[in-house]
Amino acid sequence: RIMRPDDANVAGNVHGGTILKMIEEAGAIISTRHCNSQAGEPCVAALARVERTDFLSPVCIGEVANVSAEITYTSRHSVEVQVNVMSENILTGAKKVTNKATLWYVPLSLKNVNKVVEVPPIQYVRKEQEDEGKKRYEEQKLDRLETKQRNGDMIFPVINPEPHTVGYSQSSLIHLVGPSDCTLLGFVHGGVTMKLMDEVAGIVAARHCKTNIVTASVDAINFHEKIKKGSVITVSGRMTFTSNKSMEIEVFVDADPFVDESRERYRAVSAFFTYVSLSKEGKPLPVPQLLTETEDEKRRFEEGKGRYLQTKAKRQAQLQQAARH
Amino acid sequence: RIMRPDDANVAGNVHGGTILKMIEEAGAIISTRHCNSQAGEPCVAALARVERTDFLSPVCIGEVANVSAEITYTSRHSVEVQVNVMSENILTGAKKVTNKATLWYVPLSLKNVNKVVEVPPIQYVRKEQEDEGKKRYEEQKLDRLETKQRNGDMIFPVINPEPHTVGYSQSSLIHLVGPSDCTLLGFVHGGVTMKLMDEVAGIVAARHCKTNIVTASVDAINFHEKIKKGSVITVSGRMTFTSNKSMEIEVFVDADPFVDESRERYRAVSAFFTYVSLSKEGKPLPVPQLLTETEDEKRRFEEGKGRYLQTKAKRQAQLQQAARH
Amino acid sequence: RIMRPDDANVAGNVHGGTILKMIEEAGAIISTRHCNSQAGEPCVAALARVERTDFLSPVCIGEVANVSAEITYTSRHSVEVQVNVMSENILTGAKKVTNKATLWYVPLSLKNVNKVVEVPPIQYVRKEQEDEGKKRYEEQKLDRLETKQRNGDMIFPVINPEPHTVGYSQSSLIHLVGPSDCTLLGFVHGGVTMKLMDEVAGIVAARHCKTNIVTASVDAINFHEKIKKGSVITVSGRMTFTSNKSMEIEVFVDADPFVDESRERYRAVSAFFTYVSLSKEGKPLPVPQLLTETEDEKRRFEEGKGRYLQTKAKRQAQLQQAARH
Repeated sequence: RIMRPDDANVAGNVHGGTILKMIEEAGAIISTRHCNSQAGEPCVAALARVERTDFLSPVCIGEVANVSAEITYTSRHSVEVQVNVMSENILTGAKKVTNKATLWYVPLSLKNVNKVVEVPPIQYVRKEQEDEGKKRYEEQKLDRLETKQRNGDMIFPVINPEPHTVGYSQSSLIHLVGPSDCTLLGFVHGGVTMKLMDEVAGIVAARHCKTNIVTASVDAINFHEKIKKGSVITVSGRMTFTSNKSMEIEVFVDADPFVDESRERYRAVSAFFTYVSLSKEGKPLPVPQLLTETEDEKRRFEEGKGRYLQTKAKRQAQLQQAARH
Repeated sequence: RIMRPDDANVAGNVHGGTILKMIEEAGAIISTRHCNSQAGEPCVAALARVERTDFLSPVCIGEVANVSAEITYTSRHSVEVQVNVMSENILTGAKKVTNKATLWYVPLSLKNVNKVVEVPPIQYVRKEQEDEGKKRYEEQKLDRLETKQRNGDMIFPVINPEPHTVGYSQSSLIHLVGPSDCTLLGFVHGGVTMKLMDEVAGIVAARHCKTNIVTASVDAINFHEKIKKGSVITVSGRMTFTSNKSMEIEVFVDADPFVDESRERYRAVSAFFTYVSLSKEGKPLPVPQLLTETEDEKRRFEEGKGRYLQTKAKRQAQLQQAARH
Repeated sequence: RIMRPDDANVAGNVHGGTILKMIEEAGAIISTRHCNSQAGEPCVAALARVERTDFLSPVCIGEVANVSAEITYTSRHSVEVQVNVMSENILTGAKKVTNKATLWYVPLSLKNVNKVVEVPPIQYVRKEQEDEGKKRYEEQKLDRLETKQRNGDMIFPVINPEPHTVGYSQSSLIHLVGPSDCTLLGFVHGGVTMKLMDEVAGIVAARHCKTNIVTASVDAINFHEKIKKGSVITVSGRMTFTSNKSMEIEVFVDADPFVDESRERYRAVSAFFTYVSLSKEGKPLPVPQLLTETEDEKRRFEEGKGRYLQTKAKRQAQLQQAARH
């Protein structure tokens, strides 16, 4: 679809969150279709996880985003979908790959939302495809367990914070979940949640560096808990790490089903977003260093540095591998 | 894309206007892409006309709409696009043809919006395709001239109207044109206009029959005048004709570029919409007869009857032709 | 949240209605949460009244609006909420107070929408806070009764009006209430109604003075009647008074639950909006005087003048009081 002014920031760059939302919708369609392709219980695919996603090039207002999706692996109860986004300037005809994302969906029964139904297996062209898929499946399963334990953190407000401290840029927004945010089962689309997360992370990044910023990547996001229609969701973000030219922001999503007494406010999702600051010519700008004050902030900075160095090492290994071929 | 509650009426049927908007966006993309495919002045395709469109089956919330578009004819300064919409129930896999629409676009220069640029010719598989396209081109050209002359009518309000009279159900809305309604040239997308027209026509129809209504068809619409960002548009509708099971509503769009002092309010578009009323089981219901009072209302009723009988005769001829083959 | 192009007029100033909608959403969340904080019947807070609200400074596209809400008084069946809006330019870090609004909510049972449930009392730090709150409660209760009686007026259309007359700028729009406009109870959010009212009032103001206009203040608004999902609402506005640099517009909201035969069209809300016209540098411009023709128009002009002088006197008294301290 054509990118509109509301999809973009003041500089005309389309929000990463808008693209994440389109990716998730495409994934939800293809996996729901697949899971209902055999006679059996009608079901709706719910987003369980998005693998780490890099934004390879910014998209601008007026460009057309082409989204294509393919099922690449099925386990007994989950579906792996690969989604590609190409941006196309229909005036010049120029096309660029914007995103390649991998998403995991779980089919939930339309009659009983707590029941996971079985996934029809797909056919693989080569045996290795199945083995590689299985390896990815095991890896993400392990990672999901880890984040489930880590999810307890909270963001407290700071009075009169100094510029470039964590407290200075931290931000939060609340959103009342409406009908158009939800699937047929009455739970929030994963893509809607990701769009809100990107919105908060973008505000944190802009407050820190006071320049035009764009989403560079999103770390793997696990959706442990569903969020029901009518809930209030609070999305909070704080900066955890800065390198010379990038900022890492941790985002939490808490859901409060506040009319439904049976349940307390709970942590639904958390994730790390990385932003870069761009000049008018689209070149990355230096970023002010994050000033850490408390022990926790220093620890999180070191952890962020670890993730940064790991990602950098992985990318270099890939480049060397590509150069060898 | 997946149809949301916001796209539909209370009974869960997706508004015809939402579908018209999707059709027009697909047409604008494919024709802008085509017109920029050869070296030359960058341009944006503007909607000039939509041929008569039938809504073959209603679309429901939760279904996925698949839109495909193809260029079927090019003249020197215009492009004919054929758009097909299929609705797909991703739970059952059932697919239905919802719409087949034909749209005409004219490429306007990005630098000078009053300049129409040349359209690169397409290749036809068979010579007859070009001849048939040329025939369609001449026919629509003639029809465009006719509506341009007819465009002067106005809707006057009626105080305390009786039920089932024209004055009772006539309705109008105003809309301030925002940035997301517009193309790169700063003019309203034809699809946005059609969505508002369907909204008003639907309210007129519902006020008349007080039951659940759906768009059955839209007569050819000609876009004679562009509407600029920041204008206020007034969309007015009045019922012109009822048969046993259908209602015809005439809709006018007037634009008021009120910040721009150099231009008065003007008629931008007008069209006829046909609605039917559906029972809970999706069967057409009888419609209360329109009570005409003035001479003008009686004349318009007769004209509407003429269009109704003509359409009916055409459809029967097509059915007989199809039966013969 | 970040202000988007669609939130603003052509000059980049965010619509007052967008801000009113955010304020109301925050108020609805905090009061619904409070009313469900004790074991008892689940309920949803419905907006009953908004006190007079001044727009202290315009907000622009790209700025972040920070909304904070606090419960300041509870009676047995109602909650008073104070909402503050700060706009923040995240590039410069500059913050400005935009609004301070006071809203009254009434908790309605989720099972029986006609039943008002009891509000858990709040704790006051000082005894005077409770007394002052009680005084505000009694005052608004009185005012609510008064407007309920005044609500019968209608707007009649004028053919070929002269510039600067009441008939020239009066405007109305219709809106079909969709699912996203509604609370869990299936009734329109007060904030949605206020946004539509501001849209019509803004069009009336712009038609009168043909320049860039912004909302300066909104008089107290009472919500006497709920509006159900699926209704058609007609929002009409007419200018009542002009001073040298401001315009007062009266806005009416009528609801037509037209599928539900048991109920006729009824007046749901009415209110006065005040607008100013701004130059490109953000300075107030002189406004053409309103030409009154009928006796009713002259009377309404005098009443508007009364409100204007009263507000002016109140503001000066406050300034003097502030200077003394």
